[in-house]
Amino acid sequence: MTIAGPEAHHALRVKRLEVGDRVELLDGRGHVGEGRLAATRKRGQEWEIDVQIVSRTFAELPRPRVHVLAAAPKGDRLAEMIDGLSQVGAASWGPLLSERTVVEPREGKMDRLARVAAEGMKQCGRRWVLEIRPAVSFADAIGAVNVVVADAAGGGGARVEEEVTLIVGPEGGWSAGEMKRMIEGKARMVRFGVNTMRTETAAVVAAGVLMAGGL
Amino acid sequence: MTIAGPEAHHALRVKRLEVGDRVELLDGRGHVGEGRLAATRKRGQEWEIDVQIVSRTFAELPRPRVHVLAAAPKGDRLAEMIDGLSQVGAASWGPLLSERTVVEPREGKMDRLARVAAEGMKQCGRRWVLEIRPAVSFADAIGAVNVVVADAAGGGGARVEEEVTLIVGPEGGWSAGEMKRMIEGKARMVRFGVNTMRTETAAVVAAGVLMAGGL
Repeated sequence: MTIAGPEAHHALRVKRLEVGDRVELLDGRGHVGEGRLAATRKRGQEWEIDVQIVSRTFAELPRPRVHVLAAAPKGDRLAEMIDGLSQVGAASWGPLLSERTVVEPREGKMDRLARVAAEGMKQCGRRWVLEIRPAVSFADAIGAVNVVVADAAGGGGARVEEEVTLIVGPEGGWSAGEMKRMIEGKARMVRFGVNTMRTETAAVVAAGVLMAGGL
Repeated sequence: MTIAGPEAHHALRVKRLEVGDRVELLDGRGHVGEGRLAATRKRGQEWEIDVQIVSRTFAELPRPRVHVLAAAPKGDRLAEMIDGLSQVGAASWGPLLSERTVVEPREGKMDRLARVAAEGMKQCGRRWVLEIRPAVSFADAIGAVNVVVADAAGGGGARVEEEVTLIVGPEGGWSAGEMKRMIEGKARMVRFGVNTMRTETAAVVAAGVLMAGGL
């Protein structure tokens, strides 16, 4: 298999792999190929590597599937959140648009996040990459199946078997209207800690709790 | 009460409080004073404020008391870990010295961490500051009462009532000798997630799980 682009560059210029070295290929969708670096070349400005694949395996989707919807925190904290969600094993993240959400990531930033998620996958042993999803409105988020809202006013009982949408509130808090709709809806409000947490910490800890088996 | 030093500077030059504004004073050991800014002055290069205290309350120590022992990760990740532990409500953190621990924070750095913990307390509603403790050897750590080791090879069942020492392994992993002593000792080995996590993420998520009620 021939690999070009940033992964080929990373293999040769950062990891400094040489022909014969062991290489693991991930597609981020459960497939893993193990093999050896067979050849390297440069095509214009781009590095390419050929990998001789020796064995192939497939890893099932990890359970539960935790889909996180959280407003994008500002600056570096967004990438930190993606990296943390990747480590704890969340299935996806998408920006939640609420009445008090101020930051909606631009397209270029979303591309960068996909890169952060891919890096995270390589480091923490994931076989499925954390999916970066498009922005979701509050109405769509709250209407999803099996919704858990991480909220200081919630209770316990966050055990999930298969798939859950985890909603983390914005830093400015919910509006009165949003709060009313959550309480009246089918969402479970769950308290994941004793203190006020910033969005990125709350998202990572709550997703971590759900992935580790729930409260 | 008269406050000098960095908190006075912060109140006046960052928060830009004025006489009559509401002020909350925390001592980091459960005591909270509410009052009003009564006077401001500059003594040499230092700002001072007088606070007229209107009411005093006392908050009990939060339960469980989670004492985290983890090797100090490099660079900014140490401060991130302290900040995260503060948010999730851990009681203390101290650097764990193990065979494969490379970084032991210098004294100046420990002072800076106490500052990070104090900042975290103000932001997340803590009444007790995260205590920064001196380095602990592996032998002392493993000999503490009620030890939980966060380890990928562990099982479930991390429910704690009162007080627990949470040990997070170094990035290089445990040595064979350390592993043997843990398995033979009374420490519970608990798995807090599905993936390999970096020290700071593992520490924050595991402490968060314990504070939120355990697995």
